[in-house]
Amino acid sequence: MPLTVAQLSESALLERILPRLQSPHGDPSGVLLGPGDDAALVAAPDGRVLLSVDTQVQDMDFRLQWPNGYRTSGFDVGWKAAAQNLSDINAMGGDATSLVVSLTLPGTTAVGWVEDLADGLTAAIRELGASACSVVGGDLGRGTEISVTAAVTGSLRGRSPVVRSGARPGDVVVLAGTVGRAAAGLALLESSHGYGSLGADLLRLVECQCRPRPPLQAGPAAAQAGATAMMDISDGLVRDAHRLASASSVRVDFHPEALKSLSSPLVAAAGLLDADPLEWVLGGGEDHGLLATVNPNVMPLAGFTAVGSIKAGHAEVTVGSEPPANVGWDHFAD
Amino acid sequence: MPLTVAQLSESALLERILPRLQSPHGDPSGVLLGPGDDAALVAAPDGRVLLSVDTQVQDMDFRLQWPNGYRTSGFDVGWKAAAQNLSDINAMGGDATSLVVSLTLPGTTAVGWVEDLADGLTAAIRELGASACSVVGGDLGRGTEISVTAAVTGSLRGRSPVVRSGARPGDVVVLAGTVGRAAAGLALLESSHGYGSLGADLLRLVECQCRPRPPLQAGPAAAQAGATAMMDISDGLVRDAHRLASASSVRVDFHPEALKSLSSPLVAAAGLLDADPLEWVLGGGEDHGLLATVNPNVMPLAGFTAVGSIKAGHAEVTVGSEPPANVGWDHFAD
Repeated sequence: MPLTVAQLSESALLERILPRLQSPHGDPSGVLLGPGDDAALVAAPDGRVLLSVDTQVQDMDFRLQWPNGYRTSGFDVGWKAAAQNLSDINAMGGDATSLVVSLTLPGTTAVGWVEDLADGLTAAIRELGASACSVVGGDLGRGTEISVTAAVTGSLRGRSPVVRSGARPGDVVVLAGTVGRAAAGLALLESSHGYGSLGADLLRLVECQCRPRPPLQAGPAAAQAGATAMMDISDGLVRDAHRLASASSVRVDFHPEALKSLSSPLVAAAGLLDADPLEWVLGGGEDHGLLATVNPNVMPLAGFTAVGSIKAGHAEVTVGSEPPANVGWDHFAD
Repeated sequence: MPLTVAQLSESALLERILPRLQSPHGDPSGVLLGPGDDAALVAAPDGRVLLSVDTQVQDMDFRLQWPNGYRTSGFDVGWKAAAQNLSDINAMGGDATSLVVSLTLPGTTAVGWVEDLADGLTAAIRELGASACSVVGGDLGRGTEISVTAAVTGSLRGRSPVVRSGARPGDVVVLAGTVGRAAAGLALLESSHGYGSLGADLLRLVECQCRPRPPLQAGPAAAQAGATAMMDISDGLVRDAHRLASASSVRVDFHPEALKSLSSPLVAAAGLLDADPLEWVLGGGEDHGLLATVNPNVMPLAGFTAVGSIKAGHAEVTVGSEPPANVGWDHFAD
């Protein structure tokens, strides 16, 4: 039997976690006071701090064992906790500066799973390129289900925040990162197609669900280039674009051919599962791609692809100026 | 049947919560961007930000229905979420500037309970005097148990942070706020003495458990006065003092007569429950009182009472230079 968290005191568990949260080259210089006191102290060089929070709950946001046989590792959950929080800062045009992480764990949770979670947090911060960020504190507690909440701070480094309400008719709608792949990966995890039987292309879709890779360089670059509106796609392209449309009082019109090309990496998975790849593109969110609007004169914008345009009119989302009628709109309604 | 969260969309639930999170006089000037985008933006006037996170989980940190009949209200849980986070900032000598709150809710949770939680957050911020703070964002999700995580930011306004490691032999150990009352309140809640039968003095102890009142003015004042070490008492006086002793490599010696006078408000409850009031004083934490050490030349320090002194020697906690032997030390060991 593996060692469980019920067999360790809080401080003994912390002693196993904290060394795994160290940055590879020591704490970034912005960490003025790390774990060990009632609060951490982090630099906010331009006198402002971005702040967000996200939670993952077992059986709601991930399953420990998926129908296709894949077992979610602590590494996956730690990675995703970091990724989705770092993405929120990216979406404002900022660089993440710190994370605090609260873990709620059943007593039966293996200590190794929790150590793995710490490794996943650290790996995501490093591999996604959030070089100014580290984990500066947290909270440990018990519950009947695993729940992981991270809060993140970020710095705009003097830039203006890019909000959802600034899109104007005539702007180009651009996308960085991917969309629909995490949803395809989720469908594979929920299917009866054994995890061990999947080829490399399909495994990459599963990985996109379990370890998303938000394009962290794209947010600050878009802010610098004068993006008029921005948000990350966490709940689905249409649903999130509808929020941007509402905040900006404009219509977001996607180009059908752009959506088609976004769906092409999903065709094989869709064939296997008898699914429509366009539904994943329109409804899938957890890739944490970045949706922005920019004045046409800043195009091309490195890292982004044009996927639509902003039109005057009611706050709505269209595809080729038509309602996205055949793609299960109801699933995506607020 | 009351309306439940399962009957509302996320956005409909948010529409009911957000108006209740408004500050009575509008957002404090430090909130540069509130809810509605991927991250909030908060002023950090001295170029640094304090950050902490705390979680409460149903049946671990509170019961919806206690053995004595009391039903925990959403207001209680919201108040406590704010209070314990605000206390972390207080313990560093800072003023809280913002909260983000993540709610995990079973679908059967009454919407009214959640609205009440939002009211409790707002009330605690106002009544505890955190006038520079407001709720700037959050996350809503489902789970099988109620879980509430808040993260808090704070500003030192140019002061140095007061950490746990700065206590020096000769310092006076001082306490602001109360200790042991929340533990006595917990014992009453867990008892068979019906809530409705309790007199005003005992009800105040229950209230201290459900709606703690950390002394938020005391932390910045102690920092200003040059406190050498500080922390809030969240896990018990002896256990937390032991952490301070370890971080500072000193012995914390409590004065027996000071502890006795801290236990006098608990004597009636202890009599009713056949308990030792000194155990509550030494082991109870959730009042979120403030423990600090100061040079004798800054005494008296407004808002604080002297309760002990710092001695050279092994990192340990003593009472009148003796181990606190008869008070269940094992319960409080790390």
